[in-house]
Amino acid sequence: MENGSEKWKFEGNKGLNASSVSVRGVYNMLMDSINNNENKKSVIRLCRVDPTDNPLFKTSPDASEAVADAVHSFNFNSYPPTVGLPDAKRAIANYLSSDLPYQLSPEDVFITVGGTQAIDIILPVFARPGANILLSRPGYPQYDSRAACCRLEVRYFDLLPERGWEVDLDSLEALADENTVAMVIINPSNPCGNVFTYQHLKKVAETATKLGICVISDEVYAHLAFGSNPFVSMGVFSSIVPVITIGSLSKRWLVPGWRTGWIAKCDPHKIFQKTGIVANIISYLEITSDPPTIMQAAIPQILEKTKAEFHLKNLNIMREAADIFYDVCNEISCLTCPHKPEGAMSAMVEINFAQVKGIIDDVDFCVKLAKEESVMLLPGVTVGLKNWLRISLAVDASELEEGLRRLKAFSLRHAIS
Amino acid sequence: MENGSEKWKFEGNKGLNASSVSVRGVYNMLMDSINNNENKKSVIRLCRVDPTDNPLFKTSPDASEAVADAVHSFNFNSYPPTVGLPDAKRAIANYLSSDLPYQLSPEDVFITVGGTQAIDIILPVFARPGANILLSRPGYPQYDSRAACCRLEVRYFDLLPERGWEVDLDSLEALADENTVAMVIINPSNPCGNVFTYQHLKKVAETATKLGICVISDEVYAHLAFGSNPFVSMGVFSSIVPVITIGSLSKRWLVPGWRTGWIAKCDPHKIFQKTGIVANIISYLEITSDPPTIMQAAIPQILEKTKAEFHLKNLNIMREAADIFYDVCNEISCLTCPHKPEGAMSAMVEINFAQVKGIIDDVDFCVKLAKEESVMLLPGVTVGLKNWLRISLAVDASELEEGLRRLKAFSLRHAIS
Ligand SMILES: Cc1ncc(COP(=O)(O)O)c(C=O)c1O
Ligand SMILES: Cc1ncc(COP(=O)(O)O)c(C=O)c1O
Repeated sequence: MENGSEKWKFEGNKGLNASSVSVRGVYNMLMDSINNNENKKSVIRLCRVDPTDNPLFKTSPDASEAVADAVHSFNFNSYPPTVGLPDAKRAIANYLSSDLPYQLSPEDVFITVGGTQAIDIILPVFARPGANILLSRPGYPQYDSRAACCRLEVRYFDLLPERGWEVDLDSLEALADENTVAMVIINPSNPCGNVFTYQHLKKVAETATKLGICVISDEVYAHLAFGSNPFVSMGVFSSIVPVITIGSLSKRWLVPGWRTGWIAKCDPHKIFQKTGIVANIISYLEITSDPPTIMQAAIPQILEKTKAEFHLKNLNIMREAADIFYDVCNEISCLTCPHKPEGAMSAMVEINFAQVKGIIDDVDFCVKLAKEESVMLLPGVTVGLKNWLRISLAVDASELEEGLRRLKAFSLRHAIS
Repeated sequence: MENGSEKWKFEGNKGLNASSVSVRGVYNMLMDSINNNENKKSVIRLCRVDPTDNPLFKTSPDASEAVADAVHSFNFNSYPPTVGLPDAKRAIANYLSSDLPYQLSPEDVFITVGGTQAIDIILPVFARPGANILLSRPGYPQYDSRAACCRLEVRYFDLLPERGWEVDLDSLEALADENTVAMVIINPSNPCGNVFTYQHLKKVAETATKLGICVISDEVYAHLAFGSNPFVSMGVFSSIVPVITIGSLSKRWLVPGWRTGWIAKCDPHKIFQKTGIVANIISYLEITSDPPTIMQAAIPQILEKTKAEFHLKNLNIMREAADIFYDVCNEISCLTCPHKPEGAMSAMVEINFAQVKGIIDDVDFCVKLAKEESVMLLPGVTVGLKNWLRISLAVDASELEEGLRRLKAFSLRHAIS
C-alpha cells in the first residue's frame, strides 16, 4: 500500500497513552455510555471541578479589568523574564505572606501556567535518578502522570477517612527510605474536601523533618475553607521543614481558564538554595514556556484589588452546596460520606457494596449511572481510591440537587431488596 | 549544624543545569562582562530575538481588542478543552490552509503556549525508546534541551552557508538509520535568516520519505520573508511526506508575551493517525497546561481581522534592518556574512580569525565585545556553530546602526595590523 504506515519509522510513544483508569479514559467511557442510552435526560456533570460550571460563580470585575488594562497598555507584549515579571512576583510574595509568620521575597516566587505547570516543573526538579516521592491516596492524578514522565518513583501514603482525611503518619514513616525526597499534601483537599488543622500540619512538618524530606503543599484551593477549620498554609511550618507551596488564581478567583499559578518556596533556612533546588527550578523554567506577560502584569491588581465581599459570597455558595450534598447523601443507604466537606470543591463517598446488587465496582457504578440517569461522577480509582466516588460540588445548586435526586433514584433501583 | 543541608535527602537534579554554552549561561557571562567594565556606554542587546525590542514594532490594535473583548465577555474563564477551543482551531486551520493546496481541518490543529510549548510537546511524542531525531546545525537550542529531557538522541545535519543555508541532504542521508524518526527544519530560519525555496523544500520532502521519517517544520517566522524567496510552508509537500508544522503569534504579530502558538499536522494520507502519533499528542496535551482560554478565544479575530498593511509595514522595517546590517558587515574585514538575511529576524556571521589577534573563539569575541563596547551578541556555539556570531536584527534602526558601529570599532581595534 502506497503511503501506508509500514514504511514509516516513527510510531507513538506508548508510555504516553492514557490508561482506562485515567480521568480522560473514564470521561470518554461515561460519555459513550450517555450517548448510547435512551433516557433523554439532560446531562449533569459532577465529574470535574471547574468553578465556572456554577453560573453563580463569576470572577470579580476588578480581575477582568486588570487583564484588559494590561492588554490595552501595549506594555506587556514582550517575552516575560524566565522567573516571572518582578511586580507580579512581589505581589504574590505579599499575598502569601499574609498567611505566614514572616515575609516572603519576590525571589521566593516563580510564576507558572496554572497550578498544573507548577506540578510539571516541581517534580522533575526533585527527580534525581533513583529518587522516590510520597503521594497521598486519594490524590490528584497530575502528580502521578508527571512523576511517570520524569521517572520519579511514587509511593503512596493513606489519608484516613475516619479521621477527617488526615495523613496516616505511621504509614508515611514506614514508606520513606534513603531515596525519598519529598511528600505532597493537598490542602484544602481535592478530592476529599477536608481542611487540615494547624496541629495536624505541624505533625506533618515534624515527621517530614525527621525523615529528611521536604513538603510540597498544593494550596491551589487556599482560603476555600467554609467549615470550622480555617485554612492554614504549610508555609507556617517552614522553620521546621522546607516547604514548597503551589498556588493558582483558578479556584479562588474562579478563572481556571486564565491558567495563572505559582510556585513559592517557604524556606527561611535556605535549604533549597544549599541543596541546588533553586538553581534547578530556574534551569527548568529556562526551557519552559511561561504564562503570558499580559496575565502576569494583571496579577498585582487582581491580588490587591479584589474585595473581601467577593470571597465571602463565594464561600457562602460553597457552604450551601456542601450542605445540600451532605443532607441528600445521608439519605442514600448505599453511599457513605465519612466527612462533611469543609473546603475545596469536591467530596469523596464510599460505595457500600453490601447494599447494592448488579454493580461490580466504582467504574461500573459510574458507567451505569451515566447510562440510566445521565449523571457523570468520577470513579474513585482515578484518584487512587477504588470503590469510592468523587463528586464535584462546583455546580449550580439546582443542578446539584437534580443530580443527587437522580443518584438517589439510581441507588434505590439497585438496592438489595 | 542545625538545619544545614546535610540531613536533607533531596538535591538538585544535575541533568537540568544550564551549561556554560547555554543561551542563559552565555547571557549571564556577557552581563557580568558589561557590569565589570568601565566604558559607561549604553548597553545594546543584539543577542535575543524579541520583536518588541524594536519600538517601531507594535502589534495591531485589532489583536489587542480581540483579547480585551474575550476578557470582557466573561465567557472564556473556564478550563479550555484539552486540544484547544474549537473556534480557535478552525481559525488556525483556515489561516494555514491559505498556504496549502488543500484544506486543513480543525482536528489537524492543537493550540500551545507559544511555539516553545509546541516543541516541548512534539519531541516526547516521537521519543520512543532508542529513537533519534535529526536537527540542523546551526539550529534553535530549545530542540536540543527538550530532546535531552525526553532522552531522544540527537544527530546533526549541516546547513550550508555557501549554498544560502540549504540543508546538506547528502550528510542527512548518511546520518539516518533504522531508529531515526523525524527531522526538524526551521523556515524562515532562526538563526540563519534565509528562506528555503520551493525546490529545496521539495527535495527535503523527497529525502525524508526515502528515509521513512517525517518532517517537523518550525514555521514560527512564517511569512516574515522580505527578500526574493517567498515563504513556502513545508505543508505543501505533505502528499510526499507527513509534516508537522509549528507556528506562533509571537513574531508575525509582534506579541511574544502572549505565548500563543500551535502544532498543525499536514498529513492527507493520515500516517500520523495510523502510527499512533495523533493519539499521543492528545495524551500528552491531557497532562499539559494549556494556553489561557481568553487568549485562545481571541485567535479567530486576530487571524481574520489583521490588515495586510500591518504585515507589509513590518516587512519593510525588517528589510531595512537587513540592508543596514549587510552593508556595515561588508565593511568589517574580520566578519563574513555568507548570505544576506531575507527572512526571520537574525543573521549569522563568521569570524575570520586570520584577521584578528588576541581573540580565541566566538565566546571570547562576545565577552570582549561586551566589555569594551557594551554590545551583546550571541556566540555561534550556543546555536551549534562555533566561531560564528548570531546577530538579532529585531531592534530599532538607530540602535542597530550604533551597535554595528561599535562592532566595527572593536574589530578594527583587534585587527591584525
Ligand atoms: C489539587 C490540585 N492541584 C493543582 C490543580 C491545577 O491547578 P490549575 O487549574 O491552576 O492548573 C488542580 C486543579 O484542579 C487541583 O485540584
Ligand atoms: C525557531 C524558533 N522556534 C520556536 C520559537 C518559540 O516560539 P514562541 O516564542 O512562540 O514560544 C522561537 C522563538 O524565538 C524560534 O526562534
